[in-house]
Amino acid sequence: METAKIEFIDGGTVTSPQGFCAGATYAGIKKAADDALDLGILFSETPSAAAGLFTTNKIKSAPVVLCQEKLHKGRAVAVAANSGCANASMSKQGLADAAEMSALAATAIGAAPEDVLVASTGVIGQPLPMKLIEDGVNHIVLTSDGGHELAKAIMTTDTFAKETAVVARDGGTEFTIGGVAKGSGMIHPDLATMLCFLTTDAAVDLDFLKSALQKAADVSFNMISVDGDTSPSDTVLIMANGMAGNEPISQGSRQASPFQQALDQVCVYLAKSIARDGEGATKLIEVTVNGAVNVAEARLAARTIVSSPLVKTAVYGCDPNWGRILAAVGRSGVEVVESSIDLSIGDIPLVKGGTPLPFSKQSVVRALEKSEVPITLNLNLDSGSATAWGCDLSEEYVVINSKYTT
Amino acid sequence: METAKIEFIDGGTVTSPQGFCAGATYAGIKKAADDALDLGILFSETPSAAAGLFTTNKIKSAPVVLCQEKLHKGRAVAVAANSGCANASMSKQGLADAAEMSALAATAIGAAPEDVLVASTGVIGQPLPMKLIEDGVNHIVLTSDGGHELAKAIMTTDTFAKETAVVARDGGTEFTIGGVAKGSGMIHPDLATMLCFLTTDAAVDLDFLKSALQKAADVSFNMISVDGDTSPSDTVLIMANGMAGNEPISQGSRQASPFQQALDQVCVYLAKSIARDGEGATKLIEVTVNGAVNVAEARLAARTIVSSPLVKTAVYGCDPNWGRILAAVGRSGVEVVESSIDLSIGDIPLVKGGTPLPFSKQSVVRALEKSEVPITLNLNLDSGSATAWGCDLSEEYVVINSKYTT
Repeated sequence: METAKIEFIDGGTVTSPQGFCAGATYAGIKKAADDALDLGILFSETPSAAAGLFTTNKIKSAPVVLCQEKLHKGRAVAVAANSGCANASMSKQGLADAAEMSALAATAIGAAPEDVLVASTGVIGQPLPMKLIEDGVNHIVLTSDGGHELAKAIMTTDTFAKETAVVARDGGTEFTIGGVAKGSGMIHPDLATMLCFLTTDAAVDLDFLKSALQKAADVSFNMISVDGDTSPSDTVLIMANGMAGNEPISQGSRQASPFQQALDQVCVYLAKSIARDGEGATKLIEVTVNGAVNVAEARLAARTIVSSPLVKTAVYGCDPNWGRILAAVGRSGVEVVESSIDLSIGDIPLVKGGTPLPFSKQSVVRALEKSEVPITLNLNLDSGSATAWGCDLSEEYVVINSKYTT
Repeated sequence: METAKIEFIDGGTVTSPQGFCAGATYAGIKKAADDALDLGILFSETPSAAAGLFTTNKIKSAPVVLCQEKLHKGRAVAVAANSGCANASMSKQGLADAAEMSALAATAIGAAPEDVLVASTGVIGQPLPMKLIEDGVNHIVLTSDGGHELAKAIMTTDTFAKETAVVARDGGTEFTIGGVAKGSGMIHPDLATMLCFLTTDAAVDLDFLKSALQKAADVSFNMISVDGDTSPSDTVLIMANGMAGNEPISQGSRQASPFQQALDQVCVYLAKSIARDGEGATKLIEVTVNGAVNVAEARLAARTIVSSPLVKTAVYGCDPNWGRILAAVGRSGVEVVESSIDLSIGDIPLVKGGTPLPFSKQSVVRALEKSEVPITLNLNLDSGSATAWGCDLSEEYVVINSKYTT
């Protein structure tokens, strides 16, 4: 399967892989909008190999603590998730509520509580409204097309649902990977996403599943930044139910590389969707750093640039203030020789060997006006390369975040 | 002088210490406003012991590179400074222009070029307009009250001039320390200030002067944050001309401790002024962290909280969303045990031992509406304490920074 063909599925979502279904309801946890959903369940017809990545914040939400415990056995059947309340910073009550949410969902779908993971996103420091959760889980109808509803149910300040799926084919063998995710504030490496649920019908060895998930996150969720804050709730879960009937994929299998590529593509797609939909964002910024002394330094440099408030505001205002990009890489901590740096915005070179080039201001403004703004920096030191994604910073970010709980 | 009395001087500035004078002019470097000044000189009648602290950014402005060279000998007579153009990222031309600015100022005031330091602040990546500098320096009139003009001449997006002075007295012995500073974007530890010039008429041993300056910066300029970006131009200079006639102060002198205290007070005053006047700020945030495992961790925790965009926007909107404060300390990297944390805003306790307390939302909103918002966190682990200052994040920050060069 070295020559596997990987294609995005039109309208693909987390229930595109065989044997997964999902559903959602409006339980009344978040403030009502006409088409609001705030509680959802993702279910696999057969028990799945399961792995997760979680926030690096030392203050962890109760659902994160619970998932980390449950995933020790590497198996799950379902995930119950809500928006509107993060169930974080709630001490012992938070842990009890997360466990009860898992039990309520397990009863509703007829699974064992230890096989049901939970995730919550929303306001920190407020109790999970258990009565609403209890009523809500019993109103959820699971369908094979329900991934779209689940994608909506986990949205907070997101302006669009984030979902996709790819199919990998090699002659008679094929498997599908799907996912849903939500942003869109408190987004910063490491583990930029707030919530992301991934599914695949491929049979995958648990150790390889864990390693593939970490690698995919490193080039996707760990390379985006909206505001530099890291949430206590960050959660990426993957379930592999084996219904594609393939030989289980492990390190060194023929399908290991296509699986990694397909998973990378799903995760990069979702990560870019999160960055593009950062709170108040009007455009996607893609920063590529080449020529760093190694990949780790390229990653750090790219993430620092894409996180800089001054770069973000300049892109928002279409202001060709390129000095801020050099200032950001200079403070990033990576090895930099100013007289070696090349910089371009879009395809317009602005700096060559550390020396400013004459440029048409009008053409740079036009490049900055586009919905995707590529910034490319070559440090010309060695061969380390990386790409990071972020968004511009607008007045709307402040408006959204200054009145979040009120 | 252990019982020295240290008092702020009404209307005190960088020319309050004996033997210092200053002046400024509008040379036409920055966009004109009615009362704009953009080029100034600070001068000491006698050569001074001089020391400096500079940006940690690996991309350094030409004036920073030049000052670092000149300060090897630990002596200076004057500083020439401009706003409107940072003379940064200008390669060899930048270095030549900085040297020429120093020479032009030296000629104008009758000093040797090696004794004249330079500082520039403003847009990065544009050439210093040397003809305007040349004409400008010859229009500057130095007076013993000229510190006020110098404070204005270094302003960029600052909305008020930052200047102060203290006098330390012990019977017949007295000395004065004064300073001016400017913010107000690209402000972040380490070395948060863009430009700060300090003077004293005390005679001070050069080694002690360097160490006292570093200590004062550590509790002041290195504890403020406006936007997390570190400027290539950050410069703090101190000149001690000895005209107070005291025995030179060195480590272990009777006057060492009062000198350090007086310098700390001047630097904290200026640092708080910079934080209060952060771009678009409407209020000062003061974060005190107690009970950390050591001072370094307390400093890191306080700075992380005061830098968090989500904390800053919540304070701006008077939103009692205290969970964001815990989320920030959790990601700061310091040792934290959630169940030990106490938190209050103003004098209202919100969290005790990691458990949310019931509180009157109205009273927290009132505390957040004040022009100074104190946030106090006790980690209850050991005795490390530190205070950091910052400002709220408003739509106006975005407006200012999205159109900076256009």
